[in-house]
Amino acid sequence: MLETYPKDLGGIDKDKLIACIQACFECAQACTACADACLSEDMVADLTTCIRFNLDCADVCAATGNVLSRRTGYDANVTRAVLEACAAACKACGDECAQHADMHEHCQVCAESCRACEQACNELLATIS
Amino acid sequence: MLETYPKDLGGIDKDKLIACIQACFECAQACTACADACLSEDMVADLTTCIRFNLDCADVCAATGNVLSRRTGYDANVTRAVLEACAAACKACGDECAQHADMHEHCQVCAESCRACEQACNELLATIS
Amino acid sequence: MLETYPKDLGGIDKDKLIACIQACFECAQACTACADACLSEDMVADLTTCIRFNLDCADVCAATGNVLSRRTGYDANVTRAVLEACAAACKACGDECAQHADMHEHCQVCAESCRACEQACNELLATIS
Amino acid sequence: MLETYPKDLGGIDKDKLIACIQACFECAQACTACADACLSEDMVADLTTCIRFNLDCADVCAATGNVLSRRTGYDANVTRAVLEACAAACKACGDECAQHADMHEHCQVCAESCRACEQACNELLATIS
Repeated sequence: MLETYPKDLGGIDKDKLIACIQACFECAQACTACADACLSEDMVADLTTCIRFNLDCADVCAATGNVLSRRTGYDANVTRAVLEACAAACKACGDECAQHADMHEHCQVCAESCRACEQACNELLATIS
Repeated sequence: MLETYPKDLGGIDKDKLIACIQACFECAQACTACADACLSEDMVADLTTCIRFNLDCADVCAATGNVLSRRTGYDANVTRAVLEACAAACKACGDECAQHADMHEHCQVCAESCRACEQACNELLATIS
Repeated sequence: MLETYPKDLGGIDKDKLIACIQACFECAQACTACADACLSEDMVADLTTCIRFNLDCADVCAATGNVLSRRTGYDANVTRAVLEACAAACKACGDECAQHADMHEHCQVCAESCRACEQACNELLATIS
Repeated sequence: MLETYPKDLGGIDKDKLIACIQACFECAQACTACADACLSEDMVADLTTCIRFNLDCADVCAATGNVLSRRTGYDANVTRAVLEACAAACKACGDECAQHADMHEHCQVCAESCRACEQACNELLATIS
């Protein structure tokens, strides 16, 4: 879709941008689904912190994916702060999911999405700071 | 991710469900990007209705994708109403984008995403009504 | 804010519109907070259906509040379908929360927000159908 | 609603927390409505940067309001990064809206919401850093 954007993309690395947008939306979906799968586990009482991080990470990743998708009137300060928030949310959620990844496959899948998104945010950040 | 869900999915057609979730999130992204691309067109003043439908469709598709991703405590009435709203938003946005698809490639791509999502919603609706 | 809209609002009842937008955003907040309060209850395992309805209702109410806030290029079909989905989500969540409203004050508060939003959606629907 | 939370709020200043949650959701609504009002102005072509900042700010404020509303499993690092992103989005949008606040009343109202939210984020940040 970004290939069809009518103006210049604002000097950002296009490949890293596309990778980061995709990672944000994939991570948002994984976190939403992981929160629901945790809710269906018999041991849900032990997974409440995981569910909370899932929900936060889903919200922050979705907002970040939207902000990155907008190229009109690009602002480096907002982009940088949003990417840092997204990396922080992904790190917290990935660390939490990784702790019970061996017991719950959905947490394993989600932890991988969080790591990938955290890395994509940091790689894009490195090109704009 | 749905493969890892710990309980029964609630009697819904799993393939159509996965296809619809994917179509919703792809359409949300396409609409967000199309709204921004329209904003960057020199003739933006002629595209304000398109931008509005893009924004509505993005919001409704993202909400629908999230609702469908949650299988705990499945409720057919909510699912049906949400799918109908999503199909309506996709139809309106797809019709609008199709009107200037020959002038703007982003509207062409977006119209296709809207059509695909409308169809995926209607196919899933047919299995639960 | 709607008072400052530069064009005609599209023939909709302005008072009912404002009331409905406000009810949608209040209900979205109440549902987000109720889901989190349920997560912190010792008996969280008995509240998973409630949490799921809370999350769905929060998503649908937020999307509905956004759609209603947009007056450019108003479309009655989309508005109607979205309001019906919102009323359905609020009814399901309100019914569920009401079942344990005597045990959890947050469910009592949330049930009232859901009822108010369901009613506001239905009143606005009556003016556009 | 926070009064009904079943556990400790995590050592955060409750008054500043409530004020910030409220400011985030009010700012999200104002930005969504301002984007739509800008779309309806005859001079929309001069307001595209404003619309973009409105949409970003609405997304970031809504995500921040949701994160702050969740008290289960509180994490200071995520909260801090999200508040910084929200303050940055509000500053950018407030600065942009303020530039044409004398011409468009919706931009005046929105600029005030952005300033209030930026300040509420910074005040809450001061209590957790």
